[in-house]
Amino acid sequence: MRNVSARTEESEVLSIDGERMIRDLRALADFGGERPGVHRPAFSPQDIASRNWLVERFSEAGLEAEIDGIGNVIARSPTAGPRLLLGSHTDSQPHGGWLDGAMGVVYGLEIARAVAADPSCAGYGVDVASWSDEEGQYSDLLGSKSFCGLITESDIDRITHRDQKTPLRAALDRAGLAGRARVKFGEVPYCGYLEAHIEQGPDLDNSGQKLGIVTSIVGNYNFVINFEGVQNHAGTTRMSIRKDAGVALIRLAAAIDQRFPEVAADRSVWTIGNVMLIPGAKSIIPERAEMWFQFRDTDRDRLASMESLLNELVDEASRGSCKVVLTKRSQTVPQAMDGFLRDRLEAAAERHAPGMHVQMPSGAGHDAQILAKCMPAAMLFVPSIGGVSHHHAEDTAEADLILGCQVLATAASDVLQRASKRS
Amino acid sequence: MRNVSARTEESEVLSIDGERMIRDLRALADFGGERPGVHRPAFSPQDIASRNWLVERFSEAGLEAEIDGIGNVIARSPTAGPRLLLGSHTDSQPHGGWLDGAMGVVYGLEIARAVAADPSCAGYGVDVASWSDEEGQYSDLLGSKSFCGLITESDIDRITHRDQKTPLRAALDRAGLAGRARVKFGEVPYCGYLEAHIEQGPDLDNSGQKLGIVTSIVGNYNFVINFEGVQNHAGTTRMSIRKDAGVALIRLAAAIDQRFPEVAADRSVWTIGNVMLIPGAKSIIPERAEMWFQFRDTDRDRLASMESLLNELVDEASRGSCKVVLTKRSQTVPQAMDGFLRDRLEAAAERHAPGMHVQMPSGAGHDAQILAKCMPAAMLFVPSIGGVSHHHAEDTAEADLILGCQVLATAASDVLQRASKRS
Repeated sequence: MRNVSARTEESEVLSIDGERMIRDLRALADFGGERPGVHRPAFSPQDIASRNWLVERFSEAGLEAEIDGIGNVIARSPTAGPRLLLGSHTDSQPHGGWLDGAMGVVYGLEIARAVAADPSCAGYGVDVASWSDEEGQYSDLLGSKSFCGLITESDIDRITHRDQKTPLRAALDRAGLAGRARVKFGEVPYCGYLEAHIEQGPDLDNSGQKLGIVTSIVGNYNFVINFEGVQNHAGTTRMSIRKDAGVALIRLAAAIDQRFPEVAADRSVWTIGNVMLIPGAKSIIPERAEMWFQFRDTDRDRLASMESLLNELVDEASRGSCKVVLTKRSQTVPQAMDGFLRDRLEAAAERHAPGMHVQMPSGAGHDAQILAKCMPAAMLFVPSIGGVSHHHAEDTAEADLILGCQVLATAASDVLQRASKRS
Repeated sequence: MRNVSARTEESEVLSIDGERMIRDLRALADFGGERPGVHRPAFSPQDIASRNWLVERFSEAGLEAEIDGIGNVIARSPTAGPRLLLGSHTDSQPHGGWLDGAMGVVYGLEIARAVAADPSCAGYGVDVASWSDEEGQYSDLLGSKSFCGLITESDIDRITHRDQKTPLRAALDRAGLAGRARVKFGEVPYCGYLEAHIEQGPDLDNSGQKLGIVTSIVGNYNFVINFEGVQNHAGTTRMSIRKDAGVALIRLAAAIDQRFPEVAADRSVWTIGNVMLIPGAKSIIPERAEMWFQFRDTDRDRLASMESLLNELVDEASRGSCKVVLTKRSQTVPQAMDGFLRDRLEAAAERHAPGMHVQMPSGAGHDAQILAKCMPAAMLFVPSIGGVSHHHAEDTAEADLILGCQVLATAASDVLQRASKRS
């Protein structure tokens, strides 16, 4: 049953303290704690307090840690040798779960501590980041994009809160971050980035597998579709002369529901996340309507087919009685994970949980898809109980949390040992 | 071209002062005025102020006027002879038009004044009502229902504001109406009720006709349909295992759109007025969804067919992956207008606008459908420019407003003269 390669056997196992890691994870969940969930949206007082707490923990572990001008916690190992970057995010969804993001950062803390305490690791180091606003209160994956040079100062001037429309600059100012420099990729030559995360889907839990090695992160296309008709009295306006924006929306939504399976593969997903009819009264024919539509896939060609079908359906809808306007709100391309790092994660998984790991795409977006634009990057998933995420009930068995941390530690030390031998 | 019957020629024409009536209408539009529209929701300070203003105007005209315990303005003629009741409502839609309801009440004021000033009318009288909350901030047609004995004290204890859910009792208290008696039908033996109203639809305006004699008021069935699925991550949850409440809603809405024409007649109408997806976020599969659905028709059997089709479609929807619950929120039966009163309105219309009037159903609900449960009732429509209503732009040509008032005056005096001859 075991299929461990000779090369993996050569590596030392970097031992982590699973109980200490769990204690840190629980301590972090007290910031914005809503037991069992957390409410720690980006730049909230509790988000900033948790980042200051992280800076203290990293300093105790012997790293130089700071919060930079976009809110990223960056903790640097004092070593001069090869460096690996570990990380994830500690902002949460509003009223979300305790593990989404936080787990990957606390894994990084535990592994940095283990590396610092292990004399055999003296020749290399682990840096750790907690990226800010991964969940997009202001802008999706904001902190990792800033680190990778994908956010300019004028972007920051322009970005506002997605609901409240308050400026990002004001949030940075309130958080005491105004005027601080933003740490950017390039200052340190990393040999790669590893991110551990809960799966946020049911596949591992359903199959009984303990670890997922991410092959690629899906591309995610987001649209808003606006319909404009004529408001009128729902009792006195005959059906034949109506320009009902709500009916126009329903017809397009039904066409999407019927036709998207034609271009979809097994793991393609598409979602109408929100619908609004305006004014939204029982006796008034809606004048305007709005639909939020999203689709995701790992294959660029399939994403292109989905977009072209959407355009075709919107064109058909436009031939009705209402004006229909399709606007692309955001688009991310599918991002393959680095083959060498995936192999190291797989070898570590096989070492600690032989036969209990699987290769899988990520249907959710992650900071790793941004980091992959600057350096080799890969991801490790642990099971989400019932596939639940973005919800107070989000959880993972303690043994699975500890196993995931150990596998990441082994993979990290394997990558760094190989890099030291090369250098 | 003129086709005035001999009997109509017998009646005296009761002359109204069109300019005075227009001045009153404009003065009333200053209460909650948002030129050109008005914002005078039931029991708002501006609604109560306008009712006090009406009481003063009626008193000046020699009527005994009061605001009763549900907010109805009731103005009583001092005469001992036959009495006719005229009326409509002076509460408005939120940010609505200046004529919806207000016109019928000001017609009543002008006609009561004309009757009081005309010695030939000494043997009979016109009473006038402005019903409260016709638009249903708290409950549709509340004031006329109270007058007709269809609202109990315990109903009043239970009714809350449709959006804010604040108690009706608190609104009555704030308006200074707590403890006042409610005036009920039966205290005065009326020979009938006449209500003039803007059409709120485009038929008169499109056809160039000046007056509509209402044959019947549609029945109006209102439903809320709730869908319950499972909230999940829109990136990681495969299509095959989703329980998407939004998709369940869209499929039922599309089925309604496709199938309702099968059971509809030319003037049947059905409307999805509002749709909500919960939580309504771009990357979350909706857990719950809600649809507000309404249909109207003048034919009881057709309303029954529409309801049975709706039940059939909801049953089909329930066989999908989500729970679907259909709740009837309200139901009114179609109400035919009184034949004798319709004839009198038609004769008056023919006298002042020969060949320029038409018989038509009312697609909107009106207080007359409630009054018809207590006494003979009929309605007169004047054109709505462009069919627009429930909107600031709601308007009617001044000449059409004056013509409508004159036709109602002539019909009222005709009805009363005939009643005096009988008594």
